[in-house]
Amino acid sequence: MKKKFDIVIIGGGPAGIVTSITAKKYYPDKNILIIKREKKSVIPCGIPYMISSLKSPDENELSFKKIEDMGINVIVDEVEKIDKKGKEIKTKNGDYYSYEKLILATGAVPIKPSIKGIEKDGIFLIKKDMEYLKNMVERIRKSKKIIVIGGGFIGVEIADEISRLGDKEVYIVEMLQEILPNSFDREFSSLAEEKLKNQKVEIITGVKVEEFIGNEKVEKVRLSNGKVIDTEVVILGIGAKPNCELAKDAGLEITKKGYIWVDEYMRTSEPDIFAVGDCALKRDFFTRKEIPVMLASIATAEGRIAGANLYQLKVIRENKGTVGIYSTYVGGLVLGCAGLTEKNARKEKFEIIVGNFEGVDKHPAKLPDANKIKVKLIFSKHSGIILGGQVAGGNSCGELINTIGISIQKRVSFCELETLQFATHPYLTPAPTMYSLVLAAQDAAGKFVKERFS
Amino acid sequence: MKKKFDIVIIGGGPAGIVTSITAKKYYPDKNILIIKREKKSVIPCGIPYMISSLKSPDENELSFKKIEDMGINVIVDEVEKIDKKGKEIKTKNGDYYSYEKLILATGAVPIKPSIKGIEKDGIFLIKKDMEYLKNMVERIRKSKKIIVIGGGFIGVEIADEISRLGDKEVYIVEMLQEILPNSFDREFSSLAEEKLKNQKVEIITGVKVEEFIGNEKVEKVRLSNGKVIDTEVVILGIGAKPNCELAKDAGLEITKKGYIWVDEYMRTSEPDIFAVGDCALKRDFFTRKEIPVMLASIATAEGRIAGANLYQLKVIRENKGTVGIYSTYVGGLVLGCAGLTEKNARKEKFEIIVGNFEGVDKHPAKLPDANKIKVKLIFSKHSGIILGGQVAGGNSCGELINTIGISIQKRVSFCELETLQFATHPYLTPAPTMYSLVLAAQDAAGKFVKERFS
Repeated sequence: MKKKFDIVIIGGGPAGIVTSITAKKYYPDKNILIIKREKKSVIPCGIPYMISSLKSPDENELSFKKIEDMGINVIVDEVEKIDKKGKEIKTKNGDYYSYEKLILATGAVPIKPSIKGIEKDGIFLIKKDMEYLKNMVERIRKSKKIIVIGGGFIGVEIADEISRLGDKEVYIVEMLQEILPNSFDREFSSLAEEKLKNQKVEIITGVKVEEFIGNEKVEKVRLSNGKVIDTEVVILGIGAKPNCELAKDAGLEITKKGYIWVDEYMRTSEPDIFAVGDCALKRDFFTRKEIPVMLASIATAEGRIAGANLYQLKVIRENKGTVGIYSTYVGGLVLGCAGLTEKNARKEKFEIIVGNFEGVDKHPAKLPDANKIKVKLIFSKHSGIILGGQVAGGNSCGELINTIGISIQKRVSFCELETLQFATHPYLTPAPTMYSLVLAAQDAAGKFVKERFS
Repeated sequence: MKKKFDIVIIGGGPAGIVTSITAKKYYPDKNILIIKREKKSVIPCGIPYMISSLKSPDENELSFKKIEDMGINVIVDEVEKIDKKGKEIKTKNGDYYSYEKLILATGAVPIKPSIKGIEKDGIFLIKKDMEYLKNMVERIRKSKKIIVIGGGFIGVEIADEISRLGDKEVYIVEMLQEILPNSFDREFSSLAEEKLKNQKVEIITGVKVEEFIGNEKVEKVRLSNGKVIDTEVVILGIGAKPNCELAKDAGLEITKKGYIWVDEYMRTSEPDIFAVGDCALKRDFFTRKEIPVMLASIATAEGRIAGANLYQLKVIRENKGTVGIYSTYVGGLVLGCAGLTEKNARKEKFEIIVGNFEGVDKHPAKLPDANKIKVKLIFSKHSGIILGGQVAGGNSCGELINTIGISIQKRVSFCELETLQFATHPYLTPAPTMYSLVLAAQDAAGKFVKERFS
C-alpha cells in the first residue's frame, strides 16, 4: 500500500505527540500521520508509579484518543527505511508513506550492559511498553527481594515505590559514590538517601554488578565488592542511548555521542527532516557542549519548536540550549534541580557564589502540614547571573523549581532576584520576610559584598 | 532621654523588619533601631488563620528575637514628631532619637466607615495587634452568627476559617457584584464562591451596610437592600488607608491618594528619609499610575531596595513598578493572580489575547490527590508580552503564580513561554505534553495565528 501524507512523525512518545499537536495548530490544513511502534503506550514519567501509587498499571496508559479527535492519524507499525531523496518511508508491514516533512521522534533505548547472566529471566529494563511493564509490575508485586541497579531518578523512584508495597527487601546499587549524582550536590542527594533508608531501602554505592547468577531465573547478584545478594527481580535503570539507527541508515548527520544532529529549529542535516526528543542532539545552555539529557519536558519543548517551524520559520523561536530542569519525589520529599549544580559548575570552571536558604514552606511555621524547605542557588561570581538551583521540601517545590528554571533561561541576576516581587501566603509559601528564592539570593549578595570589600 | 542611632526605622511590620535586616547586611557597622507600636505583633498574612487553623492565636506572633540576635535594637514606643532639619525624632515616652537615615514603615490603618452604629461592641477591624485580635478570635469562637463585611482576600479567608469551626452562620457582604472583584476575572472568583457556598457561607453581593443595630452590643445589621440580618460579631475587612500622619506633619511630599511620595529607590522628598511598605507610593508596573496595592510581599521587596540603598546606590537596583501578585486559599482551593486581569486590562485599553488551560496537576490524572487546575494568561496582542495571569487548583498554584509573576517582571512573550523548558513530574505537575503555562501560551498563540491570517 502507498499513501501520501504531508507530515509524517516516527514515534509516539511525548516529543512526537507534541510535534503533531503543534503542527496541527500552526498548519491546520496539513495531513499528519504518527507511526508508533507499541500497541499500547505508557506515560514515560509515570512508569515508577505503576508499581504502587496507581491502582492498576493500565491507569498509566498514554491514550491517543484526543490526538485522533484532532484529526491526526495514528497507526501502529515500525519504520524500516527512509528514502530521503524520494521523500518516502517503508514500514515493517510493507507499506509506503510519502511525506513533505518527516519528523524523527524515535526516542531512546534502555542501556543493556554486557554483564554475565544479563539474559536471565526476572531482569527488566525500563521499556516504554505497556505489556512488558505490566509483567514487570506483576513480578515485583509477587516477589520479596528486588534489586534496582542505577541510583538516578528512575532507580530512586522505583525503589521508593517498591518500598511502599511493604514487606519487600529492596536494594539500590549505584556505581558512583552517591545516588542522584548528576543532578544534585551531596547535601541534597543525602536527603533522598535518608528518606529511602527510613523506608528500609538498602543503598549500596561505589559498586558495580559483575554477574547475575541463577538457572533460568535470576537468583543472586554478584557485586564488584565481592558481596552476593539474593534476589528474585532485577530492575536496570542505568540510562538509555539515542535510537538513531534509521537516521544513520538514511545518511543523516550523527554526532560523536550518537545523537541526530539538529540546528536551533530542530532541523537535521536534511532540510525536510526534523528530529526531536531523546534521539536529537542537545546543547548545554551554558557551554553549548553536547549533553546527554533525556527528559520528557525537554522533548516536548523541542516538539513545540519543530511543530511550529516545519514549513517556515515564520514565528521566531529559539532553542536556547538545554537546561536540565527536573523534579523527583522520594518518600514524600520533593527534590528539584535546574541548571548547574555546584560541583558541575566548578568542574566547568565557572567562578561562582552560592546562596543558601533553609526555612519552612508555610507561615507561621505551626500551620498544619508545614514542611522544611531548603534552597541553594548558584550564581556566576563576576556577572551575578544565576546558573543553577536546587530545592528540597514539600510538594510546592515542584513548581518552585520552575521559577528557578525560568530565572535561568531569562538570565536573572542575584540583584534582580533579591528585589523581584513574589506572592506569599500562609498556607502556600514561606513568609514574605523569608521568601526562599529572595533569601537565597540575599545570602549570595552578602557573600558578594564581603568578597568585594575584603 | 536622648540617644543617637545611625539608622532609625519607624514601624515593626514586614517592611520595617526587612529594611533592618537588609541594612544590617549591607552596612554592618551601622547602629540600627526599630521603633514599633504594638507590644506583641502578629504576622499580618496569618491573621485569618488565628481563628481555626492554628491551635492558638499566639502561634501567629511575629517574634523579634532573631532580629535582636542580629544586633538590631527594637523598642516599643510611638513616634510623635519628626524634626527633619535636626534629624531627630521625639516619642510618646518623651525620648529623642537622632538619626543619619530614617525609614518610615508606618503601614496602614484599617478603614472604619462612617456607618451608623459602627462603635458598637462586637464590631472588629483587622488591627495588627495581638491582644485586639485574640479578643476578636475569642468572640468569634463563642458566637453562632458572624458577618464579614468585604469580599476581598481578607474577608474571604476569614469567612473560610470561621466556617471550618463548624456550627456557625457566616455571611460575607460585598458592595460590588462579586467577591474578589479586583484580583480575579469572574470564572476564577466564582470558583471561590462555590467553595464558600459548599461550606455554608452565605454570600451577599451588590449590597452595602446601612446600619449596625443593637444596644451596647451589635445585634443586627441592616443592608441597603432592606434586609436585616441577626449577628453577634461583625468583622470589617474593607481595606486600609496609608498611615502618613507623621510624614505629613514633617512636611514630606504626599501623593494625591495619600501615600508618601518615593522615588525608584524608596527615597522620599527629603534626602535622608525613606518610606517603604503600605504607607509608600506604589506605581503600577504597566502604566506607572499610582495604585493602592497593600501586600506584605511588595512591602518586603521595597524594604530590600531601601535597605541596600540607604547610604549609596552602590548596587544598581530598580523598583520596576508594582505588580500585584497574590495567592489565597479558600476551602482547600488555591487561587493566584499576577498582574492584570482580563477586565482590568480591557479597562486600561490594552489590546489583548487570552490563553486558557484546564487540566490536572498530576499525571496520570488517576494518581491520588490529583486536583483540577485552571490557568488563564493575558498577553498584549501586538507585542506578545505577558500582562497577567490567574491560576486555580491545588497547593502547587502557590508557587505556580510566582512563575507567572517572574515572567511578567521579565516581560516574557507567549512565544518564549511556549518553548521554555519546565520540570514536570507525575506527583507534582501536569504532564510534559500538557504543562499548564505552555498550553495556555499555546492557546493564545493559536488565536494569534488565526487573527493574523483571517
